[in-house]
Amino acid sequence: MEILKERIRRDGVNLGNGILKVDSFINHQVDPALMLAVGGALAARFAHLQPNKVFTAEISGIAPALLTALALGVPVLYARKSKPVTMHPNAIVESAPSHTKGKITDIIVSPEFLGPRDRVLIIDDFLASGQTIDALARCVQDAGARLVGIGAVVEKIFEGGRAALTHWNVPIESLAVIVNMDHGKIVFAE
Amino acid sequence: MEILKERIRRDGVNLGNGILKVDSFINHQVDPALMLAVGGALAARFAHLQPNKVFTAEISGIAPALLTALALGVPVLYARKSKPVTMHPNAIVESAPSHTKGKITDIIVSPEFLGPRDRVLIIDDFLASGQTIDALARCVQDAGARLVGIGAVVEKIFEGGRAALTHWNVPIESLAVIVNMDHGKIVFAE
Repeated sequence: MEILKERIRRDGVNLGNGILKVDSFINHQVDPALMLAVGGALAARFAHLQPNKVFTAEISGIAPALLTALALGVPVLYARKSKPVTMHPNAIVESAPSHTKGKITDIIVSPEFLGPRDRVLIIDDFLASGQTIDALARCVQDAGARLVGIGAVVEKIFEGGRAALTHWNVPIESLAVIVNMDHGKIVFAE
Repeated sequence: MEILKERIRRDGVNLGNGILKVDSFINHQVDPALMLAVGGALAARFAHLQPNKVFTAEISGIAPALLTALALGVPVLYARKSKPVTMHPNAIVESAPSHTKGKITDIIVSPEFLGPRDRVLIIDDFLASGQTIDALARCVQDAGARLVGIGAVVEKIFEGGRAALTHWNVPIESLAVIVNMDHGKIVFAE
């Protein structure tokens, strides 16, 4: 997706150690018009698989997942990382190590909103190590729902997430694939 | 906003003690089409004040704030509750007691994205005690930005938030105002 890559080149900051700062337009401040285009592009790549639900993890997955769901005309469900008082008592819980926070994070979802009738598209802002997305996919499995695809806005392919997720046997699509961030560079796949 | 009130009547659950469960369409699972309408309605109420930024708190404020910002054609900024590794070192930090979590929550925002040139519209999913929104408004003040309005999707007026926020001297608008939740009821203002 060329406008996304251009925006990353212009406003993304390579902080070193594979950390890409995109908080001026993706995950602190968000550009809604860019995100609408992102949601439309992700929806177009997965519409043929007929997902009836988009699933993501709070926090920074919410914006792209919401606009992908809007484009597909289906609900979006975001897993919580702590259990609200309003949550169903028999929640589905998986856990994932958080790459940027250095701790284990719970991924919690109510069985009211994920079940055997669901065809689920997972959307997140980043595909890096793939561990958060793998935990989301395990929640889909726990619920007896069917995973149909995995989409990300930005993929850091050198962190191995795509390889770690191939065992789910579903299409994996990212709108901007970064192959190298050494020495301050941001190099996209051809 | 009649379609919102109808949805709350149909799918909202009064859990007692003033707790309204709306996690099938607002804050766990989200109905993107309803949220698009919510964002459009909030934008219409504040457009004349010419906000150039929408500001909210993660997590459940993100969806309505994003779609309000989309309708206004301005960026949305969501305050973090923990500081990501990518955050600017001189963050603006305020704190608020969380009504539903029983602890103090930090509200953290980067000074890169909030400053004296900004006319800020605060949007959140709920206006209840008003304490989270008050902390957001203090961040706006700390940054030297100008607060122009406060909008919420659902207001529980009996929790006093509107009264607690009048000292900011800006318009406060909610799309569904609940006046009474006693005995399992959900009673909207006329």
